[in-house]
Parts: sequence; C-alpha cells; structure tokens
Amino acid sequence: MHLFFAPDFSVEWPFLPEEEARHALKVLRLGTGDAVHVTDGRGNFYEATLAGTDVKKCRLAVRRHEPESGKRGFSIHVAVAPTKNTDRTEWLVEKCVEIGVDQLSFVLCERSERRHFNPDRVEKIAVAAMKQSLKAYLPQLGELVPLRDFLKRTPAGHKYIAHLVEGERQLLQRVAPPGGAYCVLIGPEGDFTPGEVAAALERGFVPVSLGESRLRTETAGIVACHILNLVNSQPA
Amino acid sequence: MHLFFAPDFSVEWPFLPEEEARHALKVLRLGTGDAVHVTDGRGNFYEATLAGTDVKKCRLAVRRHEPESGKRGFSIHVAVAPTKNTDRTEWLVEKCVEIGVDQLSFVLCERSERRHFNPDRVEKIAVAAMKQSLKAYLPQLGELVPLRDFLKRTPAGHKYIAHLVEGERQLLQRVAPPGGAYCVLIGPEGDFTPGEVAAALERGFVPVSLGESRLRTETAGIVACHILNLVNSQPA
Repeated sequence: MHLFFAPDFSVEWPFLPEEEARHALKVLRLGTGDAVHVTDGRGNFYEATLAGTDVKKCRLAVRRHEPESGKRGFSIHVAVAPTKNTDRTEWLVEKCVEIGVDQLSFVLCERSERRHFNPDRVEKIAVAAMKQSLKAYLPQLGELVPLRDFLKRTPAGHKYIAHLVEGERQLLQRVAPPGGAYCVLIGPEGDFTPGEVAAALERGFVPVSLGESRLRTETAGIVACHILNLVNSQPA
Repeated sequence: MHLFFAPDFSVEWPFLPEEEARHALKVLRLGTGDAVHVTDGRGNFYEATLAGTDVKKCRLAVRRHEPESGKRGFSIHVAVAPTKNTDRTEWLVEKCVEIGVDQLSFVLCERSERRHFNPDRVEKIAVAAMKQSLKAYLPQLGELVPLRDFLKRTPAGHKYIAHLVEGERQLLQRVAPPGGAYCVLIGPEGDFTPGEVAAALERGFVPVSLGESRLRTETAGIVACHILNLVNSQPA
C-alpha cells in the first residue's frame, strides 16, 4: 500500500502535491486507475485512485474517506534535548512516530552540547515515518526552545521528567494512568542540572525512572514513548 | 565512570588489552592511580586503579571484584532478519544491548534482502553499547544462519514469533510470564512467508503481536526486547 502525504487534500480538492505526484508517477510508475492512499496528517485518510497523470496537477478520485483514522484516547508528548549527534535525534523522531507519538518538542538545556537544530529535516523524517507506518496523524513538531521557556508554557495533563539526579523516582509505567494526556521530558547526554530538575518539579513534573538500564538520550525518549503506548494497550 | 572491556581480565591477570589501554592512556590521558572500571563481558565487574602506563602491558590494581554483576532472573534472546540497510540492524543491536538483551541471533529468511552480514562490526557495536550502558554482560552474538537451520536447534524456553501473516495473535506483554527464558523471532522487511511461520509454529513458537502500529524490522526487535524487560520490571 502506498500512502501519500497531502496536507491540503480534501474530497473537494483531491490533488497530490507535486513532489508526491512525481513519486507516484515517475518513481512508482503508477497510472490512471491505480489505487493509492492519502492522508492530510490531521487524521483524514483517503482511499483513492489516480484520475490523471499530470505531475503538476495530479487529480485523484476518492473512493472512501475516513476522518479521525486511528484516533486514540490518549496523547503522548515527548520533549527532549537534541543529541550531540544529529542522527540520534533523527532516529528518535522516526521511532517515536512509528511507535506512536502526538507531539515532539526540543528543548535546550544547560548541558546541551547541540544548540542548533534543523526543523525541516525533522519534519521530513516524521512525514516519512508517518507514511511508512501508515498513520493518518503527523505529530506536532516544535522548534528548539530553552527549557526555561518550555516550562513557562507548561502543557496540561500528566507531566513527567526522566532524570538521573538523586532522589525518589517511580517507574513511569507505574505512575502513568491509562487514557491520559502525557508529557515526558528527557534530558541531554549530561543529564539535567539539579536546578533544571527543581524548576520542572515546581511546574508539576513528576520524577520518573525508565528502568534499571542506563540509556542514551534517544533511547530514553523511545522507551518512554513505548511505555506510555503500552500503558494504553488494550486489556487482555 | 569509564568502563573498559577486557575479555581475559581477572584478579590474577589484571591487564587491559592494548586497544583499551591506548584509549585510557592516550585518549582519556589517565595516569597511575586513576580509577577505572573493567568488565570481562561475562558478568565480572572490577573497580580498579591504573598501576602502570605501558600501553602494551597496562596493569591495574583491583580494588573490588563483583562477580555476576547485574545478573537477572530471566533471559532475552532476539532473533532477527538483518535489514536491507545495515545501519538499521546496527542500531537494533545498540538499542537492545542498552535496554537489556542476553542473546542476538541473525536469521536469513526467504524474503531477506540482505544476505551478507559483518559479525565483527556487530560485535564492536555490542561492546561499545555494553560499555556505554555500564553492563557487565556482553550478549551472545550469532552469525547469520538460514531460518530453517535456526529452527532446527530451537532454543528452550518461551518462544515467540512476531509476524504479520493473518491469524490470531496475542500481545507479547500478555503471554510472556515474568522470569522466563524468552526467544522472539522478528522477520525481514517483507515479513515471514506463510511457510516460515508454519515451520516456526511447528517448533513451538507462539505467534504474538507487538501492538497496533506497523513497525519496521529494527523497531519491532527493540520493542519486543523492551516489552520482555518491562514484563520483568520490579513490582510496584
């Protein structure tokens, strides 16, 4: 099945963007009448067939429209300090999208070694992962903001911080109730500073552990995202 | 903390291999009296100090020896078809080691696109991940073998196959009991063939699902490994 991303697609305006049309027509060599799937990344999923082969204006005939496709009764927001090595952050994005994530934020911490960040590249990866894993929702992606600013506009819902600074921490899977709106904060390679942890706790973030193992930043992000998905997996 | 890997290390023969000694002395610029940690990858963990600065024969003074360091009451064996893109398999190895895995096997399936495989490179990555995550056990690493041969010498314990071929499948986290010796089989990009699934079932592999999402091969391996670790995480 080929899933195409067309942010402006609708039953009234059933066209593929040029880049997607080129991929369909020139790379995959699809032709009139061939079946395709389309999402706008906002939950709308379309089964359609190609109705034309003009790359610049590739029209589809919509056979079926499913709104809120794969909508879930919970939401996961992972906020992470980008890793020194960009590949690792890109893996994190890809894997979180595959596993299931609603929002990804990037925070600049005191010990962050990476202070620059390419949001376009991250969006590209998220779109590719959404298409590959046949999802109809593209996660909301944030720009890199200082942790202090991120904490100021604290999201609602269940907030967790996975840090290694000393103190009591419960396992994320024990504290997160099913059906929640979660935000989990993951620090940089050198961890959060005690001051950053204190600021997060003040804002209602609950310290959590992701298990016994010492995990890299990107692994911690993926593991946290997976735990929150598992907490919400269907009962036996 | 710097953890060095010295497969032949013991209290009686407390020397770093040359490559590790070079890293300690030349890259990290450690000197006599500096604290280091060493593992032999078979559960022995040593706290030591440098007792010499000869790269070719770098002697340590052992302060403390902990056998069976981090030994667990369960074991996880992930058997996976290497991905077309080698990076993805290497990433799987790194993440499984970080999260916790005891054995990694590589199987050649009918639909495998990658039919070659560099075991040295995989071992290097596993060693680096073991050191980075401060573990004392290096997972057992297998060479690439045809699935048929792998199934012939079926491991003991709880055996699972995560496939997408039609049929009933329970969630892995529901069927895996704590404290088990698990083996989970993950197929190639194009999935197992129905014949391969049938052969595995005949050998006692139980079909399982890893959740709602369509996951890439390497993501499926990481997710399966993580689920089995979570099933064994300490009770509340």
